[in-house]
Amino acid sequence: MTNNFKAISFENDKLVLINQTKLPLIEEYIETDDYERIAVSIERLEVRGAPAIGVTAAYAFALAFKNYIGDRRSRFQQVYKRLAGTRPTAVNLFWALDVMKKTFEAKIDSPDLYAELLMKAKEIHEDDIKMCEAMGRNGLEIFKGESVVLTHCNTGQLATGGNGTAFNVIRTGFINNLVSHVYADETRPLLQGSRLTAFELEKAGIPFSIITDSTAAFLMKQGKVDLVVVGADRIAVNGDAANKIGTYNLAVLCKHHNIPFYIAAPVTTIDTGCATGEEIKIELRSKDEVLKIKDVQISKPSYDVYSPAFDVTPAGLITGIITDQGLFKYPYDFSTVR
Amino acid sequence: MTNNFKAISFENDKLVLINQTKLPLIEEYIETDDYERIAVSIERLEVRGAPAIGVTAAYAFALAFKNYIGDRRSRFQQVYKRLAGTRPTAVNLFWALDVMKKTFEAKIDSPDLYAELLMKAKEIHEDDIKMCEAMGRNGLEIFKGESVVLTHCNTGQLATGGNGTAFNVIRTGFINNLVSHVYADETRPLLQGSRLTAFELEKAGIPFSIITDSTAAFLMKQGKVDLVVVGADRIAVNGDAANKIGTYNLAVLCKHHNIPFYIAAPVTTIDTGCATGEEIKIELRSKDEVLKIKDVQISKPSYDVYSPAFDVTPAGLITGIITDQGLFKYPYDFSTVR
Repeated sequence: MTNNFKAISFENDKLVLINQTKLPLIEEYIETDDYERIAVSIERLEVRGAPAIGVTAAYAFALAFKNYIGDRRSRFQQVYKRLAGTRPTAVNLFWALDVMKKTFEAKIDSPDLYAELLMKAKEIHEDDIKMCEAMGRNGLEIFKGESVVLTHCNTGQLATGGNGTAFNVIRTGFINNLVSHVYADETRPLLQGSRLTAFELEKAGIPFSIITDSTAAFLMKQGKVDLVVVGADRIAVNGDAANKIGTYNLAVLCKHHNIPFYIAAPVTTIDTGCATGEEIKIELRSKDEVLKIKDVQISKPSYDVYSPAFDVTPAGLITGIITDQGLFKYPYDFSTVR
Repeated sequence: MTNNFKAISFENDKLVLINQTKLPLIEEYIETDDYERIAVSIERLEVRGAPAIGVTAAYAFALAFKNYIGDRRSRFQQVYKRLAGTRPTAVNLFWALDVMKKTFEAKIDSPDLYAELLMKAKEIHEDDIKMCEAMGRNGLEIFKGESVVLTHCNTGQLATGGNGTAFNVIRTGFINNLVSHVYADETRPLLQGSRLTAFELEKAGIPFSIITDSTAAFLMKQGKVDLVVVGADRIAVNGDAANKIGTYNLAVLCKHHNIPFYIAAPVTTIDTGCATGEEIKIELRSKDEVLKIKDVQISKPSYDVYSPAFDVTPAGLITGIITDQGLFKYPYDFSTVR
């Protein structure tokens, strides 16, 4: 049925990455065992999405010791610094590098350090795959029969090491005959929906239509959407969730049209240091992302643009949060999370 | 204060049109007394916006008889057919051509037919200007002190023969110190907001910021929007209003955030043959408008797109409708309209 693809795989002692900057028009893979080339891929956004970056960096770390015969500690210094500098604000990148660092310290005298590091990188990857599968399974209960789902931004294989967060809830629903059609918001300004999610849906064989972000309301009014499922970048202890700009818009529309609004994210997204969404700082993006599209200038560079990367959806508008440790419902109590 | 411009003007016996296809990056004018060149301008969307097309076609009709010495009736046949064929679905175009036709019939034997027709074209233009000014004045009462306004799509000088509908409500408010800042939705897919409305705001000297359409909700949540004013393409007798896709989205957001939502449109927009919004047929646009931007392919041409041109906002979500004959409030009764 499906003509699927792997965004990240490790084959013949090489890392294979799909080049996301060329999607969906060109499906091209980068196959390398050179950690420097992988570092460049992270910098160029050829690989993106928080969990995907973590998995990729772990493989790069391991590959840096393949056939390496010099001083291991100085090599470590060099590799860690290079990889940490690729996306200095990516939390998952540092988490993965620190896991690899601990393995390095423990196994520094191993006769085959590369094999030890590679095993750990594969474990990180495997854990991510399992986390995605758990979200897919735990999400099945949100479907009350065959449903039409609307989603926003990109949350599938291109964003994670596995089959995705919200995307895998949709994909697992589809496999179980619980999803018949998906509407994908194009997701301005960077168009992750019309470029990346559309590609993932095509590859998974799921029927879909792209819509502009402001079309969602009219679709809902016509009764064409049964539920909305999106991802999250950060979830506060009370359930307030930060995600791609436009997510809060959808949550308000769902409330007005009495449509369930779900978030899917691993429990690692819950920030125990953050009591409510009020504490989440919102990054403002460059005006160029709105005034240009693919390097084509569409409006005057001098015009002012207000372009927050994220918005915060209050817990009260979120019907449920699907995690790898089960489905949580409003009001949120994450105290059972391990 | 302002460095204003004229989208349509008649100077030195020539029609002068701003070339909207090049805005806002290039400000270029087409100056001509050749009706064929004007017909091409309408076809190429160098001039667009329903009232603007009507005014332009009226001038083109008159100019076709400037220095013309052949058979008037056959010239009329040729000119009417050419102009009517430029945008065959534009209601205002046919309305203006029919007014010109009546003048032609009445004045066919006049010694200076061109002067008679030009006078009528100027009258159509002047009426449009007055209608816009009336909306601007009638809209003043919606402002409760200095306000930040959000608008959608394009409703100013580039869309009408005068200073606009919703845009002139905002402009008149600004002149009277009742508007301090405007947020302009970029308005996907055709970006009339970031290209055209931004240009109009710049020229009117009104401080503004462009936002992506799905940013509006988050702006409102932060208390940054005092009211929303947009235009309308068609208004049903009960007050349901069809306008650019994304308008209904804003109306729902306004309700959730308790923000007034206004429509500004001339009474000619009220369709007395249309009882409710249910009767309004929604045109679906080409997928290319979403999958390409300025001829650059951004996603696969094979992907499905659902792209309605308009949506319908139910009367109950519209705080008031500002017309050239006064401000109407919900529930709507247009029986006093002349």
